[in-house]
Amino acid sequence: MTARLHTHQYGKAETRVVRMVRDSPRHEIRDLNVSTALRGDFAAAYLDGDQSSVLPTDTQKNTAFAFAKQHGIGSPERFATLLARHFVDDVGPVSGARVDVEEYAWERVVVDGAEHGHTWVRSGQEVRTASVTADDAGTTVIAGLKDLTVLKSTGSEFRGFLTDEYTTLPETTDRVLATSLVAQWRYAGADVDYDATYRTVRGVLLSTFATRHSLALQQTLWHMGEAVLDAVDAVVEIRFAAPNKHHFLVDLSPFGLENRGEVFVAADRPYGLIEAVVVREGAADAGEAWTRSVGAP
Amino acid sequence: MTARLHTHQYGKAETRVVRMVRDSPRHEIRDLNVSTALRGDFAAAYLDGDQSSVLPTDTQKNTAFAFAKQHGIGSPERFATLLARHFVDDVGPVSGARVDVEEYAWERVVVDGAEHGHTWVRSGQEVRTASVTADDAGTTVIAGLKDLTVLKSTGSEFRGFLTDEYTTLPETTDRVLATSLVAQWRYAGADVDYDATYRTVRGVLLSTFATRHSLALQQTLWHMGEAVLDAVDAVVEIRFAAPNKHHFLVDLSPFGLENRGEVFVAADRPYGLIEAVVVREGAADAGEAWTRSVGAP
Amino acid sequence: MTARLHTHQYGKAETRVVRMVRDSPRHEIRDLNVSTALRGDFAAAYLDGDQSSVLPTDTQKNTAFAFAKQHGIGSPERFATLLARHFVDDVGPVSGARVDVEEYAWERVVVDGAEHGHTWVRSGQEVRTASVTADDAGTTVIAGLKDLTVLKSTGSEFRGFLTDEYTTLPETTDRVLATSLVAQWRYAGADVDYDATYRTVRGVLLSTFATRHSLALQQTLWHMGEAVLDAVDAVVEIRFAAPNKHHFLVDLSPFGLENRGEVFVAADRPYGLIEAVVVREGAADAGEAWTRSVGAP
Amino acid sequence: MTARLHTHQYGKAETRVVRMVRDSPRHEIRDLNVSTALRGDFAAAYLDGDQSSVLPTDTQKNTAFAFAKQHGIGSPERFATLLARHFVDDVGPVSGARVDVEEYAWERVVVDGAEHGHTWVRSGQEVRTASVTADDAGTTVIAGLKDLTVLKSTGSEFRGFLTDEYTTLPETTDRVLATSLVAQWRYAGADVDYDATYRTVRGVLLSTFATRHSLALQQTLWHMGEAVLDAVDAVVEIRFAAPNKHHFLVDLSPFGLENRGEVFVAADRPYGLIEAVVVREGAADAGEAWTRSVGAP
Repeated sequence: MTARLHTHQYGKAETRVVRMVRDSPRHEIRDLNVSTALRGDFAAAYLDGDQSSVLPTDTQKNTAFAFAKQHGIGSPERFATLLARHFVDDVGPVSGARVDVEEYAWERVVVDGAEHGHTWVRSGQEVRTASVTADDAGTTVIAGLKDLTVLKSTGSEFRGFLTDEYTTLPETTDRVLATSLVAQWRYAGADVDYDATYRTVRGVLLSTFATRHSLALQQTLWHMGEAVLDAVDAVVEIRFAAPNKHHFLVDLSPFGLENRGEVFVAADRPYGLIEAVVVREGAADAGEAWTRSVGAP
Repeated sequence: MTARLHTHQYGKAETRVVRMVRDSPRHEIRDLNVSTALRGDFAAAYLDGDQSSVLPTDTQKNTAFAFAKQHGIGSPERFATLLARHFVDDVGPVSGARVDVEEYAWERVVVDGAEHGHTWVRSGQEVRTASVTADDAGTTVIAGLKDLTVLKSTGSEFRGFLTDEYTTLPETTDRVLATSLVAQWRYAGADVDYDATYRTVRGVLLSTFATRHSLALQQTLWHMGEAVLDAVDAVVEIRFAAPNKHHFLVDLSPFGLENRGEVFVAADRPYGLIEAVVVREGAADAGEAWTRSVGAP
Repeated sequence: MTARLHTHQYGKAETRVVRMVRDSPRHEIRDLNVSTALRGDFAAAYLDGDQSSVLPTDTQKNTAFAFAKQHGIGSPERFATLLARHFVDDVGPVSGARVDVEEYAWERVVVDGAEHGHTWVRSGQEVRTASVTADDAGTTVIAGLKDLTVLKSTGSEFRGFLTDEYTTLPETTDRVLATSLVAQWRYAGADVDYDATYRTVRGVLLSTFATRHSLALQQTLWHMGEAVLDAVDAVVEIRFAAPNKHHFLVDLSPFGLENRGEVFVAADRPYGLIEAVVVREGAADAGEAWTRSVGAP
Repeated sequence: MTARLHTHQYGKAETRVVRMVRDSPRHEIRDLNVSTALRGDFAAAYLDGDQSSVLPTDTQKNTAFAFAKQHGIGSPERFATLLARHFVDDVGPVSGARVDVEEYAWERVVVDGAEHGHTWVRSGQEVRTASVTADDAGTTVIAGLKDLTVLKSTGSEFRGFLTDEYTTLPETTDRVLATSLVAQWRYAGADVDYDATYRTVRGVLLSTFATRHSLALQQTLWHMGEAVLDAVDAVVEIRFAAPNKHHFLVDLSPFGLENRGEVFVAADRPYGLIEAVVVREGAADAGEAWTRSVGAP
């Protein structure tokens, strides 16, 4: 037999935990989608079907709900850390755990100018994310967001690019720039006010996107990463995946109309996709902490 | 031959029109998804393949872009009305037109406390909708919204219901009530400030959902409909489709924990679906104006 | 008070019922998504919050599961009919019921040339649909399919169409024609072998699409509808909604290449959307049976 | 300045290339979704906005279309290899390229027992995938599939597992096992008949899933991986991600019915997720070739 079991992990994906706090007339809500994955010596489950070291994924789900009751949801990062450390520290065969959390934000409904105590409307802007990896060596916390869709109607160019025999794109000095941003940033340690820092990073990303002139989406990502590292000491690395959501100028000349940057078609596919990692000089590498899937990507 | 062509329509669906106004440093954006459908005597296209009366769907798309340039986007309702009337009034074989518009809202990015002039973040809450039907007899305007996800963590009961041999549901006097609301309301005429009225209706829907105690989602819909008709004279009919997005209390007793309305699992499927139509007494019927599809629903 | 409750219905949507038959080593599977909706005098639930006539949607779900056990799934149409008649005939306040079923097909895995007895791979082609409406006057059965994606690489033209000042589309005598077909057909009565007839109608739709030359998608729909009525006496009406899934010829001339109908880009949006209803001469109208939603469409 | 640009790549995602061959009455179709990503010394584009080394993503799209014309689509793997090698070998600043392809299968429509020459219905089963990484050191080809949904109605157990204070799951000796399989396998070299080998691997995966008794999804993945390595010498590594698509036995006892493995509810979320990598003993590692995204995962 030449086959050998290499890396593996297993867990429960997308447990939808909604936690209310109802201690006062002003309730609180945190709405999470929790995915847990365990690593360790589970080879016997694969090779022999022996489950004696396997904590069921159903139990992982139960644990998420029980922890939500017992510990509350201080922040997605804090909750993910509690869960990940529990699996590593308290469940014998587990040597590593990965917990990924998405958080959906809710805004209070405003009635007669005042925030309502127990009614919310779901805010559909970005999804907040947290990814925590724990093992015997420690814990790594990665915060982030996805689906933050931003657009600027000017202040963006794309010219002076390399051309070859397949190039037909004209240069432009004024285009619409839009992206649905995915950003994830790694913290140096756990002594972080995660909710406050999240708001700070989000604010820096938006204001940099707005105010820095763009010669390319690449440059804009760099500016955003640099600004975050500059503003928040606790962040040592930030990663971006940014689809270039093309807004093409519509040719209205067949109808005798001039289109001076006023009418665009928003295209679905294909789209440019720019990815970049910006790190703080001297920061220790944490490559493994970025690995969500050990199977097929 | 026993087959006969009955109703039919054809059009261009989902033209993504983005309109900027760049007359001053404070740009404006309106972001639409436009679907047009034409009705008329197009039988020859079906029966004989004769296209001489058929304005191509590609032309309908071009018209949407050209009108965005020529007329701007005053509001989704206004833009849909312009397009629908154009097809009926200016294109010979067209006797009726239906234009459906979705609008995606953008909020200005705030930099140093001030709204930015040309950068936005997409607001992911509800999608605003407008459906305009035009024919020789006139024009009917239906405004609306969808995907407005609201939740209240108390103030909702469900009890006293009919039971039969398949009933296992326990009664409750305190549950989470959540829905992803679809609402559409019909205006009596065209003399409406559509943007302002949209904000008013949305506000009434939210505040009614928040403040009225709920004995059932049915009752809540009725209260919302009644409140809209009461608040806005221009609205003569409102229709709701409201999925009951179940949040089930998690049983934590196996873990020695009591769950007093604090930990819920948000379920995907199945879901209750409540539909209702509320009309103003004496309003003329406009059943045909609600018909989007004449083919398979 | 000027508001009045008009039409309404409520039910349980998307109950995912999977029924196995394991009476022999060759198991059987039917995989359904069941949505039920009840109509009747439920006004008190809306107006007063009085649920005494309201059979919970949870009970409707339970009934679907219990009926799957007790009656099996002879066919989606048969199962929907049983459920719909039960609600109308056995639940006092219910005067009308609508049951919509989607069926997902599974094909047996073939091992060493033989069909396996208890292992399947899901067939991702079309979704089969059934919509049954029951009331005191009788029962109407509508069968159908959706997401049947078909393409022909020649045998399709589009020319001779109406033009106006917004028309730029060139004529073509040879194009790719593709659609993701939605079709629904109504049966005259209930004395139908639903599974066999489904296969017949599907076959007629496909062979007609393949073999009839197309001067427009409109004409193709007519041909398909006519052929179904011609082939199957039990069908009295068929409705189509057919998105024209555009495959645009890519302009390769900038690269010195001629594109003779060989390289296409498959576009997402916008798309043409053609709808048509074909009826058998003399068939009674059943307009209400086509109404799935009474709230917002 | 403390920020430093780390890894990065950019490209064009989801170019929908459809290639027909019309040399005879029996046409051929290959339908691809092509994503290209380039790696190299593009730091100036990020740091200074200097695009002089950046081949536009638009050009990458054009190249995909032009290559489809010039070279045809022998197989997704062959086409991806051609594109990836072109970017590395022919475009100066590019030192590495990654090309990911999805292929959508089409089946010929059968008319009167014969396959039609130019009409197809899209086969909605699995999506075939190919991922090719090229650099100066060589080329790595990874084939695969996703969304292959399989189910067995017996022959699956789950018992003898680890328990803790959060465990409530009962053991079972007979359950439904279903997954929507993602599998990717790496070839030792390029001397492979990719289409034939794809069919072989797919067949081995399905027959192993069907015939091997399962004590856990983990064991089933191992059996499938082992069987593929055993059957196909050219494969040196296979990776799996398998969601456990839970089918829960419905409790019918409140209705006086016994459910002997006959009625199940198909659940959406949460779901178990099992991942595993199986390698051939002695195979060289190719970790980098598995890295699709260098930015946020």
